[in-house]
Amino acid sequence: MPENASSAGHFDEVPGRYKVRSLALAEAGRHQIRLAEHEMPGLMALREEFGPTQPLAGARIAGSLHMTVQTAVLIETLTALGAQVRWASCNIFSTQDEAAAAIVVGPHGTPEDPQGVPVFAWKGESLPEYWDCTEQILVWPSEDGGVQGPNMILDDGGDATLLVHEGVAYERAGAVPADTRPGEPDHSEEANVVRAVLRRALEADPLRWTTIAESLLGVTEETTTGVHRLYQLAEQGQLLFPAINVNDSVTKSKFDNRYGIRHSLPDGINRATDILIGGKVAFVAGYGDVGKGAAEAFRGQGARVIVSEIDPICALQAAMDGYQVARLEDVVGEADFFITTTGNKDVIRTEHLVAMKDKAVVGNIGHFDNEIDMAGLAQVPGVVRTEIKPQVHEWTFTEAGPDGQAAGRSIIVLSEGRLLNLGNATGHPSFVMSNSFSNQVIGQIELFTDGTDGSRADGSGDPTVRQYERQVYRLPKILDEKVARLHLDALGVRLSELSKDQADYLGIPVEGPYKADHYRY
Amino acid sequence: MPENASSAGHFDEVPGRYKVRSLALAEAGRHQIRLAEHEMPGLMALREEFGPTQPLAGARIAGSLHMTVQTAVLIETLTALGAQVRWASCNIFSTQDEAAAAIVVGPHGTPEDPQGVPVFAWKGESLPEYWDCTEQILVWPSEDGGVQGPNMILDDGGDATLLVHEGVAYERAGAVPADTRPGEPDHSEEANVVRAVLRRALEADPLRWTTIAESLLGVTEETTTGVHRLYQLAEQGQLLFPAINVNDSVTKSKFDNRYGIRHSLPDGINRATDILIGGKVAFVAGYGDVGKGAAEAFRGQGARVIVSEIDPICALQAAMDGYQVARLEDVVGEADFFITTTGNKDVIRTEHLVAMKDKAVVGNIGHFDNEIDMAGLAQVPGVVRTEIKPQVHEWTFTEAGPDGQAAGRSIIVLSEGRLLNLGNATGHPSFVMSNSFSNQVIGQIELFTDGTDGSRADGSGDPTVRQYERQVYRLPKILDEKVARLHLDALGVRLSELSKDQADYLGIPVEGPYKADHYRY
Ligand SMILES: NC(=O)c1ccc[n+]([C@@H]2O[C@H](COP(=O)([O-])OP(=O)(O)OC[C@H]3O[C@@H](n4cnc5c(N)ncnc54)[C@H](O)[C@@H]3O)[C@@H](O)[C@H]2O)c1
Ligand SMILES: NC(=O)c1ccc[n+]([C@@H]2O[C@H](COP(=O)([O-])OP(=O)(O)OC[C@H]3O[C@@H](n4cnc5c(N)ncnc54)[C@H](O)[C@@H]3O)[C@@H](O)[C@H]2O)c1
Repeated sequence: MPENASSAGHFDEVPGRYKVRSLALAEAGRHQIRLAEHEMPGLMALREEFGPTQPLAGARIAGSLHMTVQTAVLIETLTALGAQVRWASCNIFSTQDEAAAAIVVGPHGTPEDPQGVPVFAWKGESLPEYWDCTEQILVWPSEDGGVQGPNMILDDGGDATLLVHEGVAYERAGAVPADTRPGEPDHSEEANVVRAVLRRALEADPLRWTTIAESLLGVTEETTTGVHRLYQLAEQGQLLFPAINVNDSVTKSKFDNRYGIRHSLPDGINRATDILIGGKVAFVAGYGDVGKGAAEAFRGQGARVIVSEIDPICALQAAMDGYQVARLEDVVGEADFFITTTGNKDVIRTEHLVAMKDKAVVGNIGHFDNEIDMAGLAQVPGVVRTEIKPQVHEWTFTEAGPDGQAAGRSIIVLSEGRLLNLGNATGHPSFVMSNSFSNQVIGQIELFTDGTDGSRADGSGDPTVRQYERQVYRLPKILDEKVARLHLDALGVRLSELSKDQADYLGIPVEGPYKADHYRY
Repeated sequence: MPENASSAGHFDEVPGRYKVRSLALAEAGRHQIRLAEHEMPGLMALREEFGPTQPLAGARIAGSLHMTVQTAVLIETLTALGAQVRWASCNIFSTQDEAAAAIVVGPHGTPEDPQGVPVFAWKGESLPEYWDCTEQILVWPSEDGGVQGPNMILDDGGDATLLVHEGVAYERAGAVPADTRPGEPDHSEEANVVRAVLRRALEADPLRWTTIAESLLGVTEETTTGVHRLYQLAEQGQLLFPAINVNDSVTKSKFDNRYGIRHSLPDGINRATDILIGGKVAFVAGYGDVGKGAAEAFRGQGARVIVSEIDPICALQAAMDGYQVARLEDVVGEADFFITTTGNKDVIRTEHLVAMKDKAVVGNIGHFDNEIDMAGLAQVPGVVRTEIKPQVHEWTFTEAGPDGQAAGRSIIVLSEGRLLNLGNATGHPSFVMSNSFSNQVIGQIELFTDGTDGSRADGSGDPTVRQYERQVYRLPKILDEKVARLHLDALGVRLSELSKDQADYLGIPVEGPYKADHYRY
């Protein structure tokens, strides 16, 4: 399928209301959601705690986050707290179509009479479809038949936030810039697609995005890469609404990014390739939270792991954890698996791809697909792409490599360089997402109510005035600890309790927070 | 040996100049120091970098930190940078007598003509001796034959800092309070010893500590527990000079506290007991940095590990790392090893000690000896203490336990409840201490020069005015990364380098710092 075509096959769709693969999948989705609820004690506890007071009543949440079974439980937690919601996926491959169907149908609807939440997402979107879906969640039908904006965004990677910011910028400029062309320095196919969406919007309504931005009370952002973008916007004074950095809750980045990846990386590789990991050599680019989880997973499967890093502290950590730390160019002929986890661009480049062993497996688990140079790979003279199955492609080099690598060798690329745990498997398991998403729900409540109901987490503030400014905030530690607390029973953890005397000795309250803000865990 | 007696045997001593076990040990110590230098690339690199400019010329550093071989390399790094130094240990059991001797003799002296640094430390001090030694490092002979203070403290656990602060407080009050007696609520034998020292000082010179405090430019503090004390003093507005929190450099707490303990905990247990760890059950109280290292060490030896925690986040981490998390009282009859790592008091209490299995091994690796209730143990009716060898004691319960535990059972207590890796072995290995101590050296330079030589790490500040206030500071990230960098080559780590384009994409400089300040590693 060429990148810009629309995806083939049947859809179930009501324009402006939903577009998913098939509502007939709803029952299967509902069963999975039911089992996931059992593994998501944090979200279920929040439903119990906040269901009665409906703190999200009046919230119109535009959600851009992988439309999986776990996200389904998040969505239905938000609605259980009073919110209205519209949803799209934040990646073209990450939707579970049965989850999308179940959410549209809702717990009380039927495929014939769907009563759930508007969802615009299916597995295998084209880029134009992807950005159409993102636009759909930001444009709400208003009661008078017109359109209105959401008042909250729940984002993963920042694409919804980006669309609003670029939209506003172009409205201010009065025009959307011309497309770039292949070969031009800043050329990006995807940026052209975004411009097309915004050009269409500008024609329809020259103040669409400005109006939407004004109605927005804030965004809660899920992942490292999206958070980077937010800090950059804030530093440049261009952030249009307050943001909560969910990623840097301990119970998010130290759990989802690490333990989640430890689970879902080998899961993705296994579903994609059925190749033994044990005994092989695995190269992991980046030793941040995701890299740590990835390396641990490979080691747990008996692979020998080589790590690359640009940060000397993380490099030293990797060495202390017993991993070889090397540059990709020095070991590219040695590894059987190559996984990027850096959140950076151009990490595995064409010169590396052509120098790999025959049948080496290459995948990315960082947020964006720019870690591996897929465009460069496609331009290698004589290269042939064979689809083994969806999201698994063999790239055969019909010419010899630069160091005499034999013609006819091939490499296996997962999910076309997009995050493979979501493209080749079903993403992180429910339990770990229950931690991340509990932070999301708490963040949404915090920003939406913003002290106006006196419920601000740290108890501060004038209840009649909005406190959060156009900055990026983290949740207070006591809420982070709360999220952890909600997940202990399910694992049979029995927490010890400080005596008053011990708490005084340490100078902390018996009920927490237990650590200084700079504590690293 | 009763706690308050002085230790027996021979000493080599020149009052006010040094007091160590025997200068004849100097040659043995020098050999060990030479081998340690090879394992401490960070310190050796700092000697090379700063030797020519002598940034510590004029510094009079009072050091209170375990007088080991590694510390010897630290001391000789400080002197190589121009400092004068006086040293004591920060624990009664942690001195390596050969290291102390070598430092007094110095690289160019002989036992007959010692030319090194004044050291007041030996393995097995009594408490009065310990505090006398601490006093010795704070009282410097001045050129006119009188006394003067140091202008810098290098502290580990905060005892030197405490002596100055209490001294000043009592001078202000004009008197030292009366001793407490056993049975009184706040009774502490050690506090009485401190009061005795300060009473003596007050008689000799009613402004001794005030003068010393005024001459102090700052302290660099090594460990979690000492840092706690500093933050408490700063919060109460009572901190008398600026402090740098060395502990919370990533290259300290995430390396020393964790990887150091992973090495030195089993080392201490093995030297003390020669008992197989594999297959046994190990209980670890606390899952902070030290607890993580301890649990990993036990698991690495094939033990099954049970962790206790009061912080739900750390508890959830332990569960995710695959450890059972339980309360001590629920598993006290199950474990073969009990190790405290909390930095808290009263963690293993008498009721736990009497309920343990026959021959259970009990030790503490947290900074102070109040984690295990040794005083309570001594008061158990009929209990008998047998010295197996120094720092290894069997405590036999001649009466049946509360749940019918047989009379005649015993437990093995390491280092009388003081940190066992230093009491039963030689503490952390050199390589990890090279990281910690590189932070110390950099911290000392930073505070001592304090911008007055234009060398402040972040480049800021008026070079004629001291910038640091009576607060607790952490070192800037770029210095933390520098410390890591100095240790990569020795481990064969090959760092990758960001391209300018990649650095711009992430919004960070090619040469670092690479992470936001709140990043947790
Ligand atoms: N697939 C998923 O389910 C999932 C889950 C969480 C996060 N993520 C994404 O994964 C990425 C990494 O997240 P993280 O939390 O680990 O971030 P992180 O900042 O903790 O780690 C990234 C590491 O990569 C290193 N790095 C940067 N450029 C490099 C290069 N050229 N070569 C080698 N190393 C380099 C950095 O020094 C850093 O230590 C982000 O894009 C994040 O959004 C994906
Ligand atoms: N022996 C050594 O060589 C060495 C080296 C470094 C640090 N230390 C000392 O070790 C101690 C711990 O240091 P750290 O850096 O791990 O601190 P930390 O704060 O990271 O970890 C301590 C942990 O203990 C937990 N805790 C507190 N009270 C508890 C209780 N009653 N029961 C169970 N858990 C409890 C805390 O929640 C925390 O997670 C400190 O005293 C520190 O000074 C010793």
